[in-house]
Amino acid sequence: MGKQIRIGIVGYGNLGRGVEEAVAKNPDMELVGIFTRRAPRALTPLFAQTPVYAMASLAEFREAIDVLVLCGGSKDDLPRQGPEMAALFNTVDSFDTHARIPEYFDAVDAPARANGKTALISMGWDPGLFSINRLYGEALLPDGATYTFWGKGLSQGHSDAIRRVPGVKAGVQYTIPSPAAIAQVRSGSRPELSTRHKHSRECYVVLAEGADAAEVERAIVTMPNYFADYDTQVHFIDEETLRSEHDRMPHGGFVIRSGNTSEAHAQVIEYSLQLGSNPEFTASVLVAYARAAYRLNEQGQFGARTAFDIAPGLLSIKSPAQLRQELL
Amino acid sequence: MGKQIRIGIVGYGNLGRGVEEAVAKNPDMELVGIFTRRAPRALTPLFAQTPVYAMASLAEFREAIDVLVLCGGSKDDLPRQGPEMAALFNTVDSFDTHARIPEYFDAVDAPARANGKTALISMGWDPGLFSINRLYGEALLPDGATYTFWGKGLSQGHSDAIRRVPGVKAGVQYTIPSPAAIAQVRSGSRPELSTRHKHSRECYVVLAEGADAAEVERAIVTMPNYFADYDTQVHFIDEETLRSEHDRMPHGGFVIRSGNTSEAHAQVIEYSLQLGSNPEFTASVLVAYARAAYRLNEQGQFGARTAFDIAPGLLSIKSPAQLRQELL
Repeated sequence: MGKQIRIGIVGYGNLGRGVEEAVAKNPDMELVGIFTRRAPRALTPLFAQTPVYAMASLAEFREAIDVLVLCGGSKDDLPRQGPEMAALFNTVDSFDTHARIPEYFDAVDAPARANGKTALISMGWDPGLFSINRLYGEALLPDGATYTFWGKGLSQGHSDAIRRVPGVKAGVQYTIPSPAAIAQVRSGSRPELSTRHKHSRECYVVLAEGADAAEVERAIVTMPNYFADYDTQVHFIDEETLRSEHDRMPHGGFVIRSGNTSEAHAQVIEYSLQLGSNPEFTASVLVAYARAAYRLNEQGQFGARTAFDIAPGLLSIKSPAQLRQELL
Repeated sequence: MGKQIRIGIVGYGNLGRGVEEAVAKNPDMELVGIFTRRAPRALTPLFAQTPVYAMASLAEFREAIDVLVLCGGSKDDLPRQGPEMAALFNTVDSFDTHARIPEYFDAVDAPARANGKTALISMGWDPGLFSINRLYGEALLPDGATYTFWGKGLSQGHSDAIRRVPGVKAGVQYTIPSPAAIAQVRSGSRPELSTRHKHSRECYVVLAEGADAAEVERAIVTMPNYFADYDTQVHFIDEETLRSEHDRMPHGGFVIRSGNTSEAHAQVIEYSLQLGSNPEFTASVLVAYARAAYRLNEQGQFGARTAFDIAPGLLSIKSPAQLRQELL
């Protein structure tokens, strides 16, 4: 094996912890450290031996880190951090505001190119693996339709929306794909499905003291964009139940392409994920793509890239010859 | 859109017909013609306007064809044709003798490199899409196990094996994956599965006149490599039933990766195909990869490549910016 790929982690929430765990599962990688805006001593890494540094010292590690995995959020952290870091390091991030990806791509591409760095943006499972499967589906069956279903899973954005409702002390939201809609799509019939027919939403809410349950429920189920177009169920629970039964972050979903290669023959391609932990899986994807970022940079391929630009073989610890022998 | 990609088809069986159909579904491609060892007039293409030429005239089309799709078999045609054609044309083929892929790769790589051509080998769904998903699974969940199931589908190799049994006039064989085994794998338990537990085999046989059914059945179910390690059912039918009920070539299967990102969290990735026509789907894959072969050659990337080497975006008719906007 060649030299170890040296990884740095920026930001240490659920995703950062997942990256720390994932690097340990890849024998060709080593973790240089976690970089945080908090006081380094205030942070307890998963593994006692993982070094923790102040974010301010990051620039000193330019020679010591091969790829920096950016674990901040898409709303506030990445729009600023992504372009800034891509000028100094090879990077991988999980920027997931779909509508703003084109401008984010450009903002990261310019500094990366100018400084001979490789920046993989919008990695994870959606955007990421699901995007790849939407692309494959369309390219392999041009005469067809693509369906993406999410869940059953905890949606961070919808959980945040519930928590902003007056009278809500805490809560989580699960997105649930419709089994009937999935069965219809798998049959090859290419149905037109409304938003309401594809997913339903289930909320578990802890009320603030003195709040009116009926009023809170009405505010949730009629909320535009988030809930109004769905069948939404609201369950009221106590704080203890929320902590004990809703502390995991499962997720997943389905990308299904239904198409015809001729009038006589229908074909269905399905990709699905059943994730025990959304942040740990996303982290695992980022770490595999960190290997690709390192290799692309070694090949002199500079600038921003997305999942669409990365050949599958670049993700594997195995050599091309070994892959042809064992996995083809 | 840029110039049309000009495709040639070598060999005209089920796969060649599928390629003719698939090229018509891709608006950035045009079909230059079918090349056959038979008398060109003896061959009836799907579309009346498709030109048919003698194989002997192929070399005259070096300037007129961008990518040649090789539709011959892996046993007799491709080992000779693949290297020969890769010296003259960019090529795509579906070489599927898994054990001999490394030597075939080398045999095609040398002439392609020497002549500035790009040759994509072993494309289709297995090897091909299933291989990609075995690789992704392993890279994304290093702590895990991969399971490939095939079917329900008509297996050409096993159907041929039945037909070689004395007393068999005609017959087909279906490979059937075990629903119980698939359920076990999906549960995340990483079972050890024996050959017998993963698949069963179902045969539909037309007896030759005077043949002894019990003797034929015994010869089939005890046949080493093909049937002895499986639970095999043999059904005797008449020729008319064989023709009317078993004339399609459905296939498909599942690649499932079950792994852990931490002790607490299991993750399952599943890729599945449900194919109304195996040859038409394989043809559709070859044609999408023909687009990639053309683009790689334009970029000066010469030599043999497999599915592992091709970035997803190269398969799409859309530009990278359009893909980021619409599918990421």
